[in-house]
Amino acid sequence: MSSTERPLVVCAIAGSLRQASYNRALLRAAQELAPEGMEIRIFDRVGDLPLFDQDLEAQGDPEPVVAMRRAIAEADALLIATPEYNHGVPGVLKNAIDWASRPPRGAVLAGKPTAILGASPGVTGTARAQSQLRQTFVFTDTPVLPQPEILVYRAHEKFDAEGRLTDERTREFVGKLLVGLASWTRRLGSPG
Amino acid sequence: MSSTERPLVVCAIAGSLRQASYNRALLRAAQELAPEGMEIRIFDRVGDLPLFDQDLEAQGDPEPVVAMRRAIAEADALLIATPEYNHGVPGVLKNAIDWASRPPRGAVLAGKPTAILGASPGVTGTARAQSQLRQTFVFTDTPVLPQPEILVYRAHEKFDAEGRLTDERTREFVGKLLVGLASWTRRLGSPG
Amino acid sequence: MSSTERPLVVCAIAGSLRQASYNRALLRAAQELAPEGMEIRIFDRVGDLPLFDQDLEAQGDPEPVVAMRRAIAEADALLIATPEYNHGVPGVLKNAIDWASRPPRGAVLAGKPTAILGASPGVTGTARAQSQLRQTFVFTDTPVLPQPEILVYRAHEKFDAEGRLTDERTREFVGKLLVGLASWTRRLGSPG
Amino acid sequence: MSSTERPLVVCAIAGSLRQASYNRALLRAAQELAPEGMEIRIFDRVGDLPLFDQDLEAQGDPEPVVAMRRAIAEADALLIATPEYNHGVPGVLKNAIDWASRPPRGAVLAGKPTAILGASPGVTGTARAQSQLRQTFVFTDTPVLPQPEILVYRAHEKFDAEGRLTDERTREFVGKLLVGLASWTRRLGSPG
Repeated sequence: MSSTERPLVVCAIAGSLRQASYNRALLRAAQELAPEGMEIRIFDRVGDLPLFDQDLEAQGDPEPVVAMRRAIAEADALLIATPEYNHGVPGVLKNAIDWASRPPRGAVLAGKPTAILGASPGVTGTARAQSQLRQTFVFTDTPVLPQPEILVYRAHEKFDAEGRLTDERTREFVGKLLVGLASWTRRLGSPG
Repeated sequence: MSSTERPLVVCAIAGSLRQASYNRALLRAAQELAPEGMEIRIFDRVGDLPLFDQDLEAQGDPEPVVAMRRAIAEADALLIATPEYNHGVPGVLKNAIDWASRPPRGAVLAGKPTAILGASPGVTGTARAQSQLRQTFVFTDTPVLPQPEILVYRAHEKFDAEGRLTDERTREFVGKLLVGLASWTRRLGSPG
Repeated sequence: MSSTERPLVVCAIAGSLRQASYNRALLRAAQELAPEGMEIRIFDRVGDLPLFDQDLEAQGDPEPVVAMRRAIAEADALLIATPEYNHGVPGVLKNAIDWASRPPRGAVLAGKPTAILGASPGVTGTARAQSQLRQTFVFTDTPVLPQPEILVYRAHEKFDAEGRLTDERTREFVGKLLVGLASWTRRLGSPG
Repeated sequence: MSSTERPLVVCAIAGSLRQASYNRALLRAAQELAPEGMEIRIFDRVGDLPLFDQDLEAQGDPEPVVAMRRAIAEADALLIATPEYNHGVPGVLKNAIDWASRPPRGAVLAGKPTAILGASPGVTGTARAQSQLRQTFVFTDTPVLPQPEILVYRAHEKFDAEGRLTDERTREFVGKLLVGLASWTRRLGSPG
């Protein structure tokens, strides 16, 4: 990206509410590791969303839903950091996507270039949660970057006590993912 | 089951909060169709659960979480009726399982004989959501009845305006599922 | 695509060996429905591939493997029509991908724009097989068009006795998929 | 199991054809680690099966198919050791299941108590392949033991040069899986 291009804005969402979450820490690391010309804005309010309920929706979209959709719509791309709960996507994160996907702003996910990463204490590094997340993004017509896949396994060995990503190899991979997302976004954003 | 055996208690949970939900209606139909000796108790408070958050959990389990775990623990078996949102398990339902799976009462899902069914307006009848749900129940060591699979597709054609399951073939399948769940529960409950 | 551009060559593979297969028929329909400037070449030799075996591979790639990789490498895009066997990708098709994915020509799948469709007699229309196939293409770094998803359910009602796709709505969807694949290929093929 | 009970016969199938396969080695380890009263018989001919083809099937089941179905039918339980190829079940193994699942002996998989394990050089230890395999066994009405899940990651560190499983922790887990399979088989085999 030449210095004259406008920055690429990425909306980043973590799938965990825990303050000391590895996945929230991963997004902060991504902010540090972003290539020139990419600005990563963390949307940190998935915990404010109510549980999805069509009856509630019929009364008008709750304010945090409106805020989330706006944050996604204003971004060029999406970055999701997901833990794995019970071999799947956390309910918290899926609930956010369930709200984001609904009309009248369903278009906020459709066509939005997206990358996924995830961290967990176990060895599989959120492999199953990421697979489920990709399956969901097929429905919403959201193109997810195929590779690299970032599976931060044994996460407790890769962050320091302040939640800073210290593992050099993981930092390198995250950097590659972001470069990949930038390319993916520019290519998919160009007229077909 | 002979008339002298104690009734089999089934805790039933629907994955949708909508009042007119097909999946809630499906559980009411299951209550009507339960074989002799089976009592289906609907736990209808998943909408009261907060979004799962380990920091919140550390302050003590919220009351609806305690109530849900007790309802599951007191039942011999579990019955889940799930919609499909965005090719996956609804966040609402996954959030309930994420809470149910946690210690100190994580044991409420471990070993609990379970059956799954689901209804949706589309043609795939929640096939993908059910697959994801089964994947989650592997982690929690919850044995899920393999067959029959109840995929109530084009649900709007199978319930009347009052939410009563009117499709005879679906009623028959639900009856078979419940008979299967009774057998599954008795066999898995017997000493190994 | 303007008339001066060179045609887009698509390598098409069906996941069934049966002569009267709906999925093979679907690829023939795709040939008829291809937009101007797209040429669909059916690679019809997956039945000649041996079962994948690394020991066999070490002796040199079998001729049908070489032929398949060449067919994919020479194409701009890939089109896969899959049946669903036992809730999954047919072994026949997965075996073809397992061979295609291997070095030294592993690059034949990496980055290759791809679309998926499938037909089955049941109601779920290969939904689960398509999900698994997408999961596999993540590993091979193969970008799969998210939408439209073509789930040809109750396939026996949509083809005539000669295996011609007669259902107008399905023909329309296949046409849209191919237009989508053309756009997907052009966008992803452009320099990042 | 008391010494007067007849032995539990387990049919074991590996999903790789490679002579030095970790998964074949895993089955040999399982033979050593089997609890008293369990006999594990390895069916080692999945490489002889033709690619599944309904036209071929219509001419009569090939001999290796008949042999495989007989081996499964004569066993009380099934044990599958699967590698992961391209984030999924190897085509070789899926092809074997596709043949095994067909009538007139489709009943060979229905109701057959089954356990799954898998080894791979990577860190996810065949997690995704095992999930897909479980999905397939839902269709065939095959009850798969939920836990323990045996994900032998970094397999190259856990076997010696002769293909003997040397990692003590993995040996212990395999032993637990087999004890679990014995209990699962006895419970599910008892009259419902």
